[in-house]
Amino acid sequence: MEQYSIEVCYSPDLFPLYENKEAVVVVVDILRATSSICTAFENGAHAIIPVKTRREAMNAKENGSIVAAERNGLILDFADFGNSPSNFTKENVLGKEIVYSTTNGTKTVQMAEECKAVAIGSFCNFTVLLQWLIAQKSPITILCAGWKGKYNIEDSVFAGALTDALLTTQQYTTMCDSAIAAVDMWNTHKHNLRALINKCAQHERLRSNNLDDCIDYCLTFDTCSKVPVYVAGKIVPAKIN
Amino acid sequence: MEQYSIEVCYSPDLFPLYENKEAVVVVVDILRATSSICTAFENGAHAIIPVKTRREAMNAKENGSIVAAERNGLILDFADFGNSPSNFTKENVLGKEIVYSTTNGTKTVQMAEECKAVAIGSFCNFTVLLQWLIAQKSPITILCAGWKGKYNIEDSVFAGALTDALLTTQQYTTMCDSAIAAVDMWNTHKHNLRALINKCAQHERLRSNNLDDCIDYCLTFDTCSKVPVYVAGKIVPAKIN
Repeated sequence: MEQYSIEVCYSPDLFPLYENKEAVVVVVDILRATSSICTAFENGAHAIIPVKTRREAMNAKENGSIVAAERNGLILDFADFGNSPSNFTKENVLGKEIVYSTTNGTKTVQMAEECKAVAIGSFCNFTVLLQWLIAQKSPITILCAGWKGKYNIEDSVFAGALTDALLTTQQYTTMCDSAIAAVDMWNTHKHNLRALINKCAQHERLRSNNLDDCIDYCLTFDTCSKVPVYVAGKIVPAKIN
Repeated sequence: MEQYSIEVCYSPDLFPLYENKEAVVVVVDILRATSSICTAFENGAHAIIPVKTRREAMNAKENGSIVAAERNGLILDFADFGNSPSNFTKENVLGKEIVYSTTNGTKTVQMAEECKAVAIGSFCNFTVLLQWLIAQKSPITILCAGWKGKYNIEDSVFAGALTDALLTTQQYTTMCDSAIAAVDMWNTHKHNLRALINKCAQHERLRSNNLDDCIDYCLTFDTCSKVPVYVAGKIVPAKIN
């Protein structure tokens, strides 16, 4: 059986070193962008358009779009709503196209557009993502959004969980130290993930802004049944056979 | 008591994000450059001059310098010796100045020269380095040389060991996810470090070139009593009171 490689990239700033045009890239920003994107599609969003800058998001708002936007955890003043999964309710998103801009996650999605495919990963869509990835029969790069280019724990431990599940199928192999370390972290903490997350910097940022009520949700497996993919500038649900 | 921050940078390519001019930077390339540098000073080397390029190393050789140089683990053909600690014997280094160029470690040393101080760290000089760092009364950035800009396990687990020992003094604090994850890795594997290292990519690279005989040495604490520091283009032993 052919085996495909898995690599884990801990920072968007390192992505050029890991870029593999043949690979499917899974973008990860557990707290909170990719958890929110999965939630949006579960609640019937039509599409999400990631934009990099505050200015692009503001222009979209002025042109009548629905805009979700935050920086450093806080909603931008012109936006319709912020970056918590609880903002992406049926009421806010059903049948709608949403322009979305966040500190780390949304710009990371755009980085990988030249690769074979770009999918959105979170604990919320873990199992359906896993099944979709296996069906792609491709190498996989898990791209952690991190925090302003720095490594973060929550994205890395998700990368470990996903890598571990992929390796279990025997269809994959890895010689990537980031992947090996991430799997190790996952296996050390999988029975008490919340205790690990409580030690991480993003937990403290969210807590200090009273935004940490989303954390348990973001660490819960399989609340969503969609695999969002980035195609031609928009994130849409992948067609699943 | 004033507390100083610790940050761990997993890749030279991310160093601009972590650079803190007030910090003492500890450069780490466990397999093998920083282990070799410590060994060189233990065996009486006078100074080590890190150079980035193969061309600079070759020029130095043509001008009569003693040159240690490798790329991808293998000694360069013009060099006097390569990058294993076992090359830096008393016979090769006592009283001598050595020009040194490696794939990752030596160029990383030069990156940090604008910071308060640059020290060379390895398990070989762990305790003397720890004591020297505490005496500096400064923030600390542990800069992992990695592999061609990518994360590696052996440098990260050393960063965890050093961070853990520094935090134990109560003189330091950290809010850096890389540091927290590195400490976690150290505490998970400290009783069987060799098993962890056997899983890492650099172990496989060294093994495939029959260069893995240095690994147990590179994981042994306190075989060396010097703290090499980079000052004005040269690595020399720090004066220790």
